[in-house]
Amino acid sequence: MFTHEARIRVRYSETDQMGVVYYGHYAQYFEVGRTEAIRAMGLTYRELEEAGILMPVIELIVRYIRPARYDDLLVIRTTIRELPGKSITFFSELYNEQEKHLTSGNVTLAFVRKSSGRPCAPPAALLDRLGPFFV
Amino acid sequence: MFTHEARIRVRYSETDQMGVVYYGHYAQYFEVGRTEAIRAMGLTYRELEEAGILMPVIELIVRYIRPARYDDLLVIRTTIRELPGKSITFFSELYNEQEKHLTSGNVTLAFVRKSSGRPCAPPAALLDRLGPFFV
Amino acid sequence: MFTHEARIRVRYSETDQMGVVYYGHYAQYFEVGRTEAIRAMGLTYRELEEAGILMPVIELIVRYIRPARYDDLLVIRTTIRELPGKSITFFSELYNEQEKHLTSGNVTLAFVRKSSGRPCAPPAALLDRLGPFFV
Amino acid sequence: MFTHEARIRVRYSETDQMGVVYYGHYAQYFEVGRTEAIRAMGLTYRELEEAGILMPVIELIVRYIRPARYDDLLVIRTTIRELPGKSITFFSELYNEQEKHLTSGNVTLAFVRKSSGRPCAPPAALLDRLGPFFV
Repeated sequence: MFTHEARIRVRYSETDQMGVVYYGHYAQYFEVGRTEAIRAMGLTYRELEEAGILMPVIELIVRYIRPARYDDLLVIRTTIRELPGKSITFFSELYNEQEKHLTSGNVTLAFVRKSSGRPCAPPAALLDRLGPFFV
Repeated sequence: MFTHEARIRVRYSETDQMGVVYYGHYAQYFEVGRTEAIRAMGLTYRELEEAGILMPVIELIVRYIRPARYDDLLVIRTTIRELPGKSITFFSELYNEQEKHLTSGNVTLAFVRKSSGRPCAPPAALLDRLGPFFV
Repeated sequence: MFTHEARIRVRYSETDQMGVVYYGHYAQYFEVGRTEAIRAMGLTYRELEEAGILMPVIELIVRYIRPARYDDLLVIRTTIRELPGKSITFFSELYNEQEKHLTSGNVTLAFVRKSSGRPCAPPAALLDRLGPFFV
Repeated sequence: MFTHEARIRVRYSETDQMGVVYYGHYAQYFEVGRTEAIRAMGLTYRELEEAGILMPVIELIVRYIRPARYDDLLVIRTTIRELPGKSITFFSELYNEQEKHLTSGNVTLAFVRKSSGRPCAPPAALLDRLGPFFV
């Protein structure tokens, strides 16, 4: 299992007139969590993409427990529970500064070769970094 | 069963550098679908909110089949399969102009009294309009 | 002078906790106005881009007079006052259903060849359509 | 003069199909710059709002020099050149990691009492913190 924690400050633009974060913006928070989780492995998603691998999202699930509010400093915990095969799933949990659990979700992404638009195996660099966490 | 179709033109702002609509923006498309479905019943979500009922989202699921692209004129089909109780679930399906199925999803919202922040029954106005579709 | 009017319904996602449209989202409304103005000429921005012309924004100015609110059906009036040269400027004015003037602004875009990344002349197709409005 | 620097990592959601940050999203970056500048003074915008002061934006100007790209770690330098009177203007400059100047802009906000919706004087707490920088 691989776990990583990142911090995100809620922006005014992310609130809506209900006075809380708009439900669609959690997808962005999950993305920040994934990006920073990959960076923590010593890779960047940018490099994967520049190396010709795209990772389109194929499924998103979000469960909203408590709302995040403007200026909250959130912790986003991103977990990979299984080595990627045809796809990779990131589990995301969001907490506020009072350590209240706000949101749970998961995002599944495929691996696609940019040149062909066809599914492909996970990048070796990613498997190399993740391997040690799954022995 | 209640079904409604709305049309949405993809904005440039909604694309990302993969050249397709960013995965988080479908939540907004689903919202437009819900809003127009409620308007087609002869109500508006704005009025429900002004009458003191908030409808926070408690679950979002999106399955991505094919990407939507810039300037696509999308059809969003919104379906309510059951009369609302403690919550209401909207099923959303997105199609492009070639009638290709792009995305499926569903959004579940609770009913909350604005004054108290407590769960409440669905607004009578909503039940009145939906009733005839479920006899 | 070329003028075009489009309609935009304010989405819940576009409001913020002040209860009005977030100031950054007007850039998207202006973009919808430009896109529809170009479509009304018999072109699409999508085609211009597919033909190898990019139009990056070089300046944005917005003056906020009155706020737009959730579910408002806005009129966006887009005007081109001069034939494009090295750049093109779109003037945008936003009105609500009560014909109150909400926002004024203008967006200036350059013409860049996608293959080279270098500035280029405005596409002939665009000049052809605009010419008759400036005689 | 009061100056503050904050850091922002460009999110995938902020890019568009031109492969760069969408022009409308700089308003959000400027907002993060303002928010962090105020926090550096020992205040928060959240507290100002909770104390009954809203600060609606009345003018936005952005000049785009070079594009920001996905995963860039941007420096946003926010400057206040004059003590606020009826309004306050924040000047924003954005730089990338290579210290290239990407964007310049300024945002002017009014002070409005939440209870009445009427213009009001700048909060004393804000003037107190800013005063020493303008002697």
